Order: sequence, then C-alpha cells, then structure tokens
Amino acid sequence: MKIIVDAMGGDKAPEEVVKGALNASNNPEIEIILVGDEKKIRPYLKDSDKNIEIVNAQEVITYDEQPVNAIRKKKDSSIVKGLKMLKDKKAQAMVSAGSTGALMAGGLLILGRLEGIDRPAIATLCPTAKGPILMLDIGANSEVKPKNLVQFAVMGSIYSKEILNKYNPTVGLLNIGTEEEKGNSVVKTAYSELKQISSVNFKGNIEARNIFDGDFDVVVCDGFTGNIFLKTVEGFGMYIFHQLKNEIKKSPRYLAGAALLKPAIEKIRSSMDYSEYGGAMFLGIDGVLVKCHGSSDSKAIENGINVAYNSVISSINEKLREGLKSVTEKGE
Amino acid sequence: MKIIVDAMGGDKAPEEVVKGALNASNNPEIEIILVGDEKKIRPYLKDSDKNIEIVNAQEVITYDEQPVNAIRKKKDSSIVKGLKMLKDKKAQAMVSAGSTGALMAGGLLILGRLEGIDRPAIATLCPTAKGPILMLDIGANSEVKPKNLVQFAVMGSIYSKEILNKYNPTVGLLNIGTEEEKGNSVVKTAYSELKQISSVNFKGNIEARNIFDGDFDVVVCDGFTGNIFLKTVEGFGMYIFHQLKNEIKKSPRYLAGAALLKPAIEKIRSSMDYSEYGGAMFLGIDGVLVKCHGSSDSKAIENGINVAYNSVISSINEKLREGLKSVTEKGE
Repeated sequence: MKIIVDAMGGDKAPEEVVKGALNASNNPEIEIILVGDEKKIRPYLKDSDKNIEIVNAQEVITYDEQPVNAIRKKKDSSIVKGLKMLKDKKAQAMVSAGSTGALMAGGLLILGRLEGIDRPAIATLCPTAKGPILMLDIGANSEVKPKNLVQFAVMGSIYSKEILNKYNPTVGLLNIGTEEEKGNSVVKTAYSELKQISSVNFKGNIEARNIFDGDFDVVVCDGFTGNIFLKTVEGFGMYIFHQLKNEIKKSPRYLAGAALLKPAIEKIRSSMDYSEYGGAMFLGIDGVLVKCHGSSDSKAIENGINVAYNSVISSINEKLREGLKSVTEKGE
Repeated sequence: MKIIVDAMGGDKAPEEVVKGALNASNNPEIEIILVGDEKKIRPYLKDSDKNIEIVNAQEVITYDEQPVNAIRKKKDSSIVKGLKMLKDKKAQAMVSAGSTGALMAGGLLILGRLEGIDRPAIATLCPTAKGPILMLDIGANSEVKPKNLVQFAVMGSIYSKEILNKYNPTVGLLNIGTEEEKGNSVVKTAYSELKQISSVNFKGNIEARNIFDGDFDVVVCDGFTGNIFLKTVEGFGMYIFHQLKNEIKKSPRYLAGAALLKPAIEKIRSSMDYSEYGGAMFLGIDGVLVKCHGSSDSKAIENGINVAYNSVISSINEKLREGLKSVTEKGE
C-alpha cells in the first residue's frame, strides 16, 4: 500500500516526519511517498532506505494562511501536490501534520465529499477509564446544523465498528446536561433527530465530565465544542503534571516518593499523550486523510501512518458510503 | 450582615448546608437566615447556635424541574422565599446549592437585571499556574449574541478588579485559535466589538489549553462552552487521580512511593477542588446571589457564604452598575 506523507507539515518537519515515515516503512506492506522540498528531506534519508520515494514540492502552506486561498494559490505545496496524487490514485492514503484548515479545504476542493455528507468532520480518540473512545467533530466545523451532528453520529458509529471493532457502538451527544431539553437549539434538534435513526445506537446526551468513564463509544459535537474539550484536556493534563513536578522539588521526601512512583506516573502521562493515538481522521472526505498533531514527533507520525494503513485495510470509505446510503434511502 | 442560605439546595442538604452555615456564622459580622423545612433543619442546630434564624419553607425545587414553571408555582420553596426576602432587603445576599436554572430564573423574575445587562452570567474561579482566574459564563446562557459576551467581559473585569484585587485585569475570549478570524460568527463579532471597549483590557482570543497558564485574569465565553470547559476539567481531574490510584495498587514499590508523595498529591488535588473556591456568582442580577456546586459539603457552603460576604463588603453591584453605565454612556 502506498501512503503519501506531507514531509513539510508540523513544527518538527521535515526531520521528525521523515523519521516517523522511515519507522512506519519497516512494515513491508507500506510504501511511503514523501512530498516536500527534496533538498530538505534528503539529508534524513540513507541510500539503504527502501520503500521511500520523494516527490518534490517547493511551497509550504503555513498555519496562519487563509486555507482556501492557500490551497488555490500554492499549487506546488506539499499539501496540494499530495492531495492531487491521492485524488489520482497514486496512493491509497495521505498523512499530514500541517494546517488543519488547509487540509480540510484541500480535502473538500480536491478530493470532494462522500455522498450524503454535507460537512466532513475530524475524528480522534480520547482516553477513558475503559480505553480510547471516538470523538467528532474536534475542529473542522465551528458552526453546525443539527443534520451535521446526525451525519457525524452515523460516520462515528461506522468508524467505531469497523476500525475500533466495537460491537453496536453507543453514541452520545455532548451537552451541558443529560436531559433531552438541555443545551442550545442545535443540540436539542439533533437529539430528537438522532432518536429516529435506527442505524445509530443513540444513548442520549453526555456531559463532558462523564466522557472519561468510557461508557459511550462515540461522542458527537460541533467542532468548536470538540476543540475546546480536547484542548482543555491537553492544557489541564500539562498543568497537573507541572504542579506535581513543582511540589516534588520542595522536599527530599517527595523526591524519594517520586522516584519510586515514576513508572506509574509516566504510564498515566503517556496514556494521555496524543502521539500514542496517532492521527485524527477526516471523515466524510472522499479519500483516506489523516491529520497528525502540529507538534508531532516521529512516533506520532508513525502512529498516524498506521491509522491511515488500518483505515485503508478496513475499506473505511466504502463502509461509510454504504452506511450513509442506507440512512438516506430509508429517508431517516 | 445578613445572608440567606437555601437550606434545601444541593445533594447533601440540609445537613451539610446547615453545618457550613454554622461555620460561616463564627464570623461575628455574619448573621445567617436558613430558609427551608424547619423540621428537617432543626436537628442540626443547637440552642447555643447564635446568629442563625430559620424561615420555614415547605417546598423544594428539584434539579429536573423546568426552572420558570417551578419559580412561578412553588411560592413556598426555599429558593422563591429566599429570593423574595433578598428583594425585600431582609438580607444583603443569598447562597444556594440548588438548581442553577431555577436560581437564574428566580433571580431574573424576582430580583431583576442590572441596567445595561441583557443576560446575566455565572462566573466562577478556575485554578491556574498563577492562581485562580475568573471565568464567565459557565452555564447560564447556552446561546449568546456578541453583545452578551461583551457585557460578560465588562462585568468580569469589574469583578476581577474589585473582588479579586487584580490591577487592570486582562481579558481573553475563549476560542479555538488565537487569530482574530478564528471561531464561529458570534465570537468573531464579539472580538471586533471588544477591541473598541476602552474599559476592558482585552488581549484577544485564548485557547482552552492556555487558560491554565494564568496569563489572563478573565476568560469570557458562552455558557455552553464554559460549562463544557469546567466539566472537562472536573471529569479529567477525577480520571487522572483514579488512574493513578489504580496504578499505585499494582506494586509495593508504588505504594511506598505514594505514601511519601501523598501530601503533595493531596495539595494538588485540593487546588482543583471546587469547594475551595466557594460559589459561583450570578453577575448581572440585581442582588448578591451565590451558587454552590450541587454536591457541596459544609466547607463549600462556608466558602460560598464567604464569597457572598466579600461581594457585599465590596459593593460589587454598585461597582458593576457604575462600570456598565460608563460603557453605555460612551456609546461603546
């Protein structure tokens, strides 16, 4: 399987991206196509590196560029070139740690949407007491209509079932209370619509504090709320460990205790680490497109490539297409 | 100063509420009026308890009641009776751990709004690396207009300055990116309006992960987003400590380490504890009304009463009135 990797995307590109791609290419079934500035990529490759091809792209789309403009203007950027190759079936998937906005805009303009989807969503895994669960949208759509939330629920259910092997996955709507009448008008309407969809095992509203219990397999929300949730987890996790570190420094007794506890603390810390979970998936785009965190190191890139690999193996987009078709046909 | 305490509000009422009220009344300047079912309250009081008065109220408004209906129908509830006494100046403030929705509805219907405020907000403290900061709205308004966010910013600034003693407090708008063009249409418009308000030291957008750095004194958001943020912090904090506990059990080495580290861990845990911060303030209501967490113990109630006490001492509503007036007069 050929997987395109945007060598220029992310704060640690190209070095960490190339390293991650090299590690992923140890899987003999994966062939990597690195897209980016060849002069900057080449130093990190050895002659012996097999399964790696370079496609030169001179431009880079940065985080602060207006996404649609950037996609239209920078034809020789790693994102545009990579997406065009994916569109032309030169590869089966693409992985990038570049601008989320540019990837979404490029995905829509170059690859297009799956039939039945008005707005694609970004889905990611979130750690819970019962293992990772799926959350979407986490940042593609800062404003949504109820039908978008319904489509996210359908896609999330299929992804959870096919890729995460959950049987009849339970779906919750992220809200500020569990009662049906809670929340803003969008979630209230989405709630009543979701109750009608037989292909979604909808269990009602879920509050943010209960996500970590792991009783819901899929949590659906708009991209603004999802992004606030994820960044709160990220920031608060860092804050707690930072506070702990400060406290520990204050006494030899604490230092001794911390030395004994270190492996346990590290285990918890890494269970929260986005890089363990690989990338986030653009669901609803007509192509397998995985987004890694902007500060991805080689491990995160490698995991992102593995997410892409598993998605292709599972024919996720065909499954999504079938699932969406059956919802539409039933007039649900 | 007389402070009304809703003896029936919260999961641990009336016992913990009465205990908290008793502790607060050790301050000779505080006289408590407990409103609620006298037969249920009396057993927790001794004859020697001074500074405590009971006003009998037979009804209780529960969490699952529709707030406006409950306020209209249950005239003999602790919330309605307490708010009416506050309106009639029988006391200077009221504290309750009851239904947020009912308190807000009752506050609006019985006490009314401050001039210049379209929608009151609930403000609370959030722990950060540089001490607690103020956050609002955390749940009163699940849908807002840009002008509501602007009013929250004005009120938050005044509260931060007058009650938290911050000099020229910095204000941030909670968003999914720091650039001006990020987010949904409401926050985008609020951003451009906030730039024009000279009485607010507006520093732009803040992402959820950066709140904990403590570089902003006031964080403004709609009540849906604020509620998601707070409950994510609550749930994720519980999750991390739960995971740590589970890991520790696995080996004698970890148990030894944990015994040494315990005071440090407890210190961090309690820094996150809502009960340390007392209550949340209803800002924009014409009266000092403090809401304690639904699962408040006596300490949380006591702290909530102290928040109310400090708000009255600082004449917070007069300060808000003046501040709002100057914004309106300038046509800002």
